[in-house]
Amino acid sequence: MEIKFIAVGGTIDKVYFDSLSRYEIGESNINDILKDGRINFKYKVSSILKKDSLDMTDQDRLIIHQAVQAEINDKIIITHGTDTMIETAKVLADIKNKVIVLTGAMEPAKFKSSDAIFNIGFAVAAVQTLPHGVYLAISGKIFTPDNVMKNRILKQFEEKM
Amino acid sequence: MEIKFIAVGGTIDKVYFDSLSRYEIGESNINDILKDGRINFKYKVSSILKKDSLDMTDQDRLIIHQAVQAEINDKIIITHGTDTMIETAKVLADIKNKVIVLTGAMEPAKFKSSDAIFNIGFAVAAVQTLPHGVYLAISGKIFTPDNVMKNRILKQFEEKM
Amino acid sequence: MEIKFIAVGGTIDKVYFDSLSRYEIGESNINDILKDGRINFKYKVSSILKKDSLDMTDQDRLIIHQAVQAEINDKIIITHGTDTMIETAKVLADIKNKVIVLTGAMEPAKFKSSDAIFNIGFAVAAVQTLPHGVYLAISGKIFTPDNVMKNRILKQFEEKM
Amino acid sequence: MEIKFIAVGGTIDKVYFDSLSRYEIGESNINDILKDGRINFKYKVSSILKKDSLDMTDQDRLIIHQAVQAEINDKIIITHGTDTMIETAKVLADIKNKVIVLTGAMEPAKFKSSDAIFNIGFAVAAVQTLPHGVYLAISGKIFTPDNVMKNRILKQFEEKM
Repeated sequence: MEIKFIAVGGTIDKVYFDSLSRYEIGESNINDILKDGRINFKYKVSSILKKDSLDMTDQDRLIIHQAVQAEINDKIIITHGTDTMIETAKVLADIKNKVIVLTGAMEPAKFKSSDAIFNIGFAVAAVQTLPHGVYLAISGKIFTPDNVMKNRILKQFEEKM
Repeated sequence: MEIKFIAVGGTIDKVYFDSLSRYEIGESNINDILKDGRINFKYKVSSILKKDSLDMTDQDRLIIHQAVQAEINDKIIITHGTDTMIETAKVLADIKNKVIVLTGAMEPAKFKSSDAIFNIGFAVAAVQTLPHGVYLAISGKIFTPDNVMKNRILKQFEEKM
Repeated sequence: MEIKFIAVGGTIDKVYFDSLSRYEIGESNINDILKDGRINFKYKVSSILKKDSLDMTDQDRLIIHQAVQAEINDKIIITHGTDTMIETAKVLADIKNKVIVLTGAMEPAKFKSSDAIFNIGFAVAAVQTLPHGVYLAISGKIFTPDNVMKNRILKQFEEKM
Repeated sequence: MEIKFIAVGGTIDKVYFDSLSRYEIGESNINDILKDGRINFKYKVSSILKKDSLDMTDQDRLIIHQAVQAEINDKIIITHGTDTMIETAKVLADIKNKVIVLTGAMEPAKFKSSDAIFNIGFAVAAVQTLPHGVYLAISGKIFTPDNVMKNRILKQFEEKM
């Protein structure tokens, strides 16, 4: 059993640069999170983009689609910005024979009170138990892309009415 | 969808008492972990024991069995010491029509590098996706009770050979 | 013995707002830091500005000067942005009969690897041992305002050559 | 300016061993704490004992005395268990021409809510500003050895009545 992690950016990997007085997307936190999680499975991590998801273009989504399509592993977790995670999930919906789970975080992994660790743990279970398909795994729930919305006021994901 | 959490002790909830110069099992960390996880589902937490699992007796396991059996919710996560989690899982194996997931941690939740948050996130996904039955969810993998052992040297859970 | 803390902004109190996809200056972290420090002295905290120090004006520095001048306590710690902490210290240099220590952080207090806690502990000792005057307490050293510069490349404070 | 750190044990460096189901004293946390503190001074660290201070003997205190006496640096911070820190400070009181600051922590440095970082920051300022002598730097205050007691109920240090 092997899991492939693909990091494409998002709040989860934001860091603070004092010299620039702002946040930028840094290296993926997946290795550190899995290490503290003391996990016992094989995995690989690639970082293919470092985009805030508000800045993602169709071209970026095509790059992600290609990476997922080409991936030998059938268990893939994508760490992604939360703002347009649903759009990217819809673009991936035609990929067959893979369990594709998108997750991210509302607060950077480097923050003490971040949801990043919880969300990665959550996604790691989801990718092992769900049938082939594309899912969002965040706010402690599993969603299919056509059935979810981001509630920006409450900063959480919910089923569409 | 509602999840019931039952805390029975274990390393996950150990705290350090300077005045006694040792550890004791403190309050359950579940509420804090779910809050940082920014979860969007209903849940309840009960703390029914505060036992190190090396100290668990048949009587304790009966108490746990009764609590799980009586629980209206069909999704139950039990936080438990790792040393005898497998024994408790076996005792619960006869309970029908519930998804029962046992997890815990190798390092207390109050430690900076603890596996607790990852494991709770992991268990929260597992309990929503697995079919009825009893499972251990730890070391980033899902095990059935008859097919797992704790590797004390590597401090992880593995499939039995 | 009582210490007065005056928070005026800076990286130390920056938080991340996912909905705005950027940082803002939040509430002062001093109370939480002193609580974990298990300190045993009386103190008060006021938050008089929430400014990034690159945005500080002469008017802001006048406000700070007035607050420090009017303060009954003779031991004052000011948490301030690091970019123009030296300028503010120079403006305060004419205030007599007080120990005034400026500190801050290169990374927000809410980050796991922040220097905030170390710097506050450092400033709390400095304000109790130094003679009357104005000082910067950061990068693990104590500086007088005319003898220090911020090295933006190394992100630390150093004596002027 | 160079500071010498001497680690002799204590709660500050306690770690949790799941396989032993208890805490033991691990490696000194000083390097990690100074790194996050982004300090800008030279320092050395030696670990000469790994003792819980309730277990310290006269022989141990002699070892500490010899190490401090022989130290070329005149600025020394000793991380020590809090239970008998006062006794060790008294044994060191005859050493001349050095600033010797003892500190430690009520909760291990590896805990999220530890006082360790605050105390080390505090001690680092104290050792640079105090005149030659022996001091305890903890609970946010500086004490001389003949004028302090540990209040075990409140878990803090206070001036003797």
